[in-house]
Amino acid sequence: MSGWLAIAGLGPGDDALLTEEVRTALAQATDILGYAPYVARIAPRPGLQLHASDNREELSRARHALSLAVAGRRAVIVSSGDPGVFAMAASVFEVLEEAPEWQFLDVRVLPGITAMLAAAAKAGAPLGHDFCAINLSDNLKPWALIEKRLRLAAQADFVMALYNPRSAARPDGFGRALAILREECEPERLLIFARAVTTPQEQIQTVTLAAAEAEMADMRTIVLIGSRSTREVGRFVYTPRGAS
Amino acid sequence: MSGWLAIAGLGPGDDALLTEEVRTALAQATDILGYAPYVARIAPRPGLQLHASDNREELSRARHALSLAVAGRRAVIVSSGDPGVFAMAASVFEVLEEAPEWQFLDVRVLPGITAMLAAAAKAGAPLGHDFCAINLSDNLKPWALIEKRLRLAAQADFVMALYNPRSAARPDGFGRALAILREECEPERLLIFARAVTTPQEQIQTVTLAAAEAEMADMRTIVLIGSRSTREVGRFVYTPRGAS
Repeated sequence: MSGWLAIAGLGPGDDALLTEEVRTALAQATDILGYAPYVARIAPRPGLQLHASDNREELSRARHALSLAVAGRRAVIVSSGDPGVFAMAASVFEVLEEAPEWQFLDVRVLPGITAMLAAAAKAGAPLGHDFCAINLSDNLKPWALIEKRLRLAAQADFVMALYNPRSAARPDGFGRALAILREECEPERLLIFARAVTTPQEQIQTVTLAAAEAEMADMRTIVLIGSRSTREVGRFVYTPRGAS
Repeated sequence: MSGWLAIAGLGPGDDALLTEEVRTALAQATDILGYAPYVARIAPRPGLQLHASDNREELSRARHALSLAVAGRRAVIVSSGDPGVFAMAASVFEVLEEAPEWQFLDVRVLPGITAMLAAAAKAGAPLGHDFCAINLSDNLKPWALIEKRLRLAAQADFVMALYNPRSAARPDGFGRALAILREECEPERLLIFARAVTTPQEQIQTVTLAAAEAEMADMRTIVLIGSRSTREVGRFVYTPRGAS
C-alpha cells in the first residue's frame, strides 16, 4: 500500500465550510496531524491516529507527517482556513527542500476557506476590489518589512486583510500598524474586526480608523481595512467593483 | 414564506471544492441566477428555475435576484470561485445602495474557494507569505491604477495573483503588465500560469519572468507571480514563511 500526505484546510471554524475534497481525505486518513485545537475538530474513530502538537512545531510536524507517508500511512495535516495561507503547506515544502528523497512522495495541498474570505462574506463584500493579505506576526520576518508593506499597500489603495494581528506574545505590533495606517489613510477609513468568524463566539465589528483601538484585536481576530472606496450600505460593508 | 438571497461561490470548477454550506443553499433554492457557464453547473430539478444571463449583466442580475427574494422566493446567485473576489457580491451591494427598501432583506454571502487558492494548492504553496490579488481587467478602472498597483506590489515584494489577465476583448493588458514586472523584478522571478484549474482542461505551467509570454494567459488563466523568495522544490513551487 502506498502512503500519501495531504495538507488540508478546515476553513475558519464552521464544519459547513469544509469542502467535499477535504472530507474525503479525512475519511481515508490513517493519521491526522496538526496544532491541537485543529486536531480537536476531527471526530475520533477506530484505527485513526490523532497527533496533536504545539503551534511552534511546524517543521517537526511536517517531518513526522512525511515519515508516516514513507511508511505507507495516509497522513493528513490539518490547518485552519487554507493550508497555503500563513499555514502548514509552506512548512512541508521547507522540509522537502532539506530532504530530496521525499520529493517524489504523493503530497497534495487541499484548499480551504481562508479567514479573510469568511470574514468578508459575513461583512458583505469588502474584498470586492484589489486586495492584499499581510501576516502581522514578526516571528519570521523583521518588523521593518511589515511596516514597508503596510505603507505600500495603503499607497496602492489595496483593501488589506491583516492575519495574526495581535497575541499575548506580540501585544504591540497591531498598535504600531494602526499608527502607520493613520499616517497613510484618512480617519474615515473603514475597518472590520472579525473575531472567531463562523464559530459560536463570532463577533463582527465595523469602525472607522479614527475609532479603532489596538485592544479590538486578539489572536482569533482578522482585521480587514477598506480601500478609499469601501463603504457601508445598511448593515453591510462593501468595496465597489469600479475605481478611479 | 419569507424569501432570501444567497450569493454563493461554486469554487474554481471541480464540484468536490464546494462547501457543504453552498450545497445546502443550492438544495433549498427555488431560483438560481448567474452567468450562463456557472448556472450550467447546477443540476436541474422540478420546481427549480434556472436564470442564465450574460457576463456584462451583473447589475440587472442582482436586481432580478433581489426582486425574487422580495416576492418570497429563495434565490441563489452563483459565482465561480468566491463571490466576494471579483465576482457578484459587490454588484448586489451596489444595487442595495440604490434601493434602500431592499436593505432589510435576508441577504447572505456564502464563501467559496477562489481561483488563487486552488491554483496555489496545485502548484505547492506559492502564497505561503504576504500576497495580493489584482484584477487585470480595465473595464471598471483605469489602466494607470493597475500599473501603479503592480509597481507598488512588486516594491512591497508581495506574491501576486493576477485575475482576468487576458481576454479577446483585452488582448494587450497582460503584455503591458509583464513589461512592468520586467522593470521591477529580476528575470529569474517565478511565474505560475494556472489554466482551468481543477477542471479536466487544467494546465499548470511554471516559468521564469524572462521566459514568460503574454500568450501563455487567456480568460481561464490565473497568473501567480512569486516574491523574491519564491522557489522550486522538486515539482512544487513555494514561498518560505520567513523573509528578511
